[in-house]
Amino acid sequence: MKNVIVGQSGGPTAVINASLLGVYRKAKELGANKVYGMVYGIQGLLEKRLVDLDEYLADSGNQELLKRTPSAFLGSCRYKLPEPALHHPTYEKIFAILRELDIDAFFYIGGNDSMDTISKLSTYSCMTYSDTLFVGIPKTVDNDLAITDHTPGYGSACKYIANTLKELVRDGLVYQNPVISVVEIMGRDAGWLTASACLVKDDDCEGVEMILLPELTVDIPHFLQKVGAIVKQGKSAVIAVSEGIKVADGRYVCQLADEGTQKDPFGHVRLAGTSRYLADLIAQTYGCRTKSMELSFMQRSASHCQSLTDVTEAESLGAYAVQLAYEDKSGIVATLVRTSNNPYNCKLDYSAVHHVANAVKKIPLSWIDGENYQVTQELVDYIRPLVEGHLEPIWDKGLAKHLILKK
Amino acid sequence: MKNVIVGQSGGPTAVINASLLGVYRKAKELGANKVYGMVYGIQGLLEKRLVDLDEYLADSGNQELLKRTPSAFLGSCRYKLPEPALHHPTYEKIFAILRELDIDAFFYIGGNDSMDTISKLSTYSCMTYSDTLFVGIPKTVDNDLAITDHTPGYGSACKYIANTLKELVRDGLVYQNPVISVVEIMGRDAGWLTASACLVKDDDCEGVEMILLPELTVDIPHFLQKVGAIVKQGKSAVIAVSEGIKVADGRYVCQLADEGTQKDPFGHVRLAGTSRYLADLIAQTYGCRTKSMELSFMQRSASHCQSLTDVTEAESLGAYAVQLAYEDKSGIVATLVRTSNNPYNCKLDYSAVHHVANAVKKIPLSWIDGENYQVTQELVDYIRPLVEGHLEPIWDKGLAKHLILKK
Repeated sequence: MKNVIVGQSGGPTAVINASLLGVYRKAKELGANKVYGMVYGIQGLLEKRLVDLDEYLADSGNQELLKRTPSAFLGSCRYKLPEPALHHPTYEKIFAILRELDIDAFFYIGGNDSMDTISKLSTYSCMTYSDTLFVGIPKTVDNDLAITDHTPGYGSACKYIANTLKELVRDGLVYQNPVISVVEIMGRDAGWLTASACLVKDDDCEGVEMILLPELTVDIPHFLQKVGAIVKQGKSAVIAVSEGIKVADGRYVCQLADEGTQKDPFGHVRLAGTSRYLADLIAQTYGCRTKSMELSFMQRSASHCQSLTDVTEAESLGAYAVQLAYEDKSGIVATLVRTSNNPYNCKLDYSAVHHVANAVKKIPLSWIDGENYQVTQELVDYIRPLVEGHLEPIWDKGLAKHLILKK
Repeated sequence: MKNVIVGQSGGPTAVINASLLGVYRKAKELGANKVYGMVYGIQGLLEKRLVDLDEYLADSGNQELLKRTPSAFLGSCRYKLPEPALHHPTYEKIFAILRELDIDAFFYIGGNDSMDTISKLSTYSCMTYSDTLFVGIPKTVDNDLAITDHTPGYGSACKYIANTLKELVRDGLVYQNPVISVVEIMGRDAGWLTASACLVKDDDCEGVEMILLPELTVDIPHFLQKVGAIVKQGKSAVIAVSEGIKVADGRYVCQLADEGTQKDPFGHVRLAGTSRYLADLIAQTYGCRTKSMELSFMQRSASHCQSLTDVTEAESLGAYAVQLAYEDKSGIVATLVRTSNNPYNCKLDYSAVHHVANAVKKIPLSWIDGENYQVTQELVDYIRPLVEGHLEPIWDKGLAKHLILKK
């Protein structure tokens, strides 16, 4: 291997930097001279904003910090490449830069949209008989990528969400006077993150009473009837809801509230507000105490609560992507294939990137108990291993230490 | 010592159960026969809802779990005792139960209102020549108790808030396109919790750009002008705001928004919404991208992010309260007196409870730099030691394990 380049793209996760570390370490092991980082993904590459990763990662202490740093160390982008066509100036510019830097392999860590980038670049590469190899590394807290069993970033977000919900269950039970707490969790089209609420119920916790996922539309009267049964028992309860839940006519639940409050200052519908709408509806219907909360952006960057399984897999996938390029493969994405739940085992594999790009994987309907607003044991068994193990932060004066790029 | 009784009162914290453990251990060490717990505080005591703590805490493994369990293990209440008067039925009932149980000493872990309970009970005890001793143990995430240097619960909440804000700073910087994130933190009258945002700035973090505290009224045009300077530089920024900030005419900032959205279904003003109001105002004024977030109830029960300093002090204060009763003291509250910042040192002391009850301690104005929406080094030096050290949760299948009462 001569030189390689790596970029990060799409939304932050708690472990996207572990994949970056995997790429760096493996490329160095396989003899790469330079490992370049694109600052702000492909968008930064187009502006030639690059960093030589040796500057930061030759130091093993910094490697440990990088693994524990949330968000994207290199910076990220949401940049959609145009359709590949010969002589297209965007592609000509990218490939000129890659030639200039003498790049063997291009790695991109991201979700659906980022795999679209890998797909287009490898297509253009074939069209122009370029030697550069293009390999994708999956990443997204949403876990909505096709083919791969799950995505790095998902397990740590679930670990944060489930631990937080477990604390909120205790918090809600503190007084004799019951309270219904509605907690809003990320997930516009797929309920994977919200489903992690199923982990909370155990010998030492009453669990989350209801789980509302966007895979099923919400029937408001039926929902209220179920809540009414809880209120009647005088119990406190936590209800977990995906931000993207909809009613049968296709409107988001948050749009049912006064329209004026549900748009941002530019008039765009905002999904936030689902938990508040439902909490208010419950209070109005039953005259009981309610609370609404949103886990918001905290849930995707909570590196102080990383799953060791997740960190390890993220790093392994980064390293494996380099191995695949070393074996001259291109236009592919590294994936995880689960071979066993108990004991948990996943092996590394890969797939043509066009199978993954732009597809959305939802929770199988057979894993959802819609009548009772719960999920099945299959879903519990699927998520549980992904949150196991804990990577302790490196604490400095009470705060988790990070590695940051001097931009 | 014969028998003692202990209750928890007011809002949850991450370490109120460490104080409960301190009471239990010390009482046993000093020869107490029974250590009773009031289930749901004084309200539960009036219903004779009691638990013999040996059932749970004779086991040392359970003791370790209790220390790491958020919210109030025994359950809590917000119950205001009437003014003490001879033959008052509420007091007669309480003291009859205490006589029946042969109670030497009564411990109550709580904030301002709970110290009011201790004050009234000890007054009644004097009026009736009762032998029972009454000692308070401070607790509140708000840190607004008089006399004591700080309150158990505050340090862990600060640790959670500062670590979360540090992650949100990284999250906000992920794209080239800047974003102004407004994060709302608890604090109606005192800004102690929000002030912990000052810990975030360090070699490895850009820090929180502005801190808005309820100790000073907000001048909206001045605030917008400062934000404008940030927007002009094209920087992403995090702004930390207390839920209780007000404008000069006495209205809460959240009340400046459309009135209809700022009341709960029963017509009560709700403080939540401050961050959203300011984020929308900034977006409307400067046409920039903004986000709003609320740390909500997550910040007071985040036992997965406990400060070891806080846990240790909470337990010590519980134990010290028992020691004080053993020395025949009553009508007092155990306190912390800071003797040094560096190295950090606090000694245990006590004060007459009426000095603490119902008083609210705010941040000294000399510690706030209102012009720049920052705090002074004195405030950094005050908070820093309180978040130091980390008590690792006891993980079980990826989740922090708790000890719960079978009610």
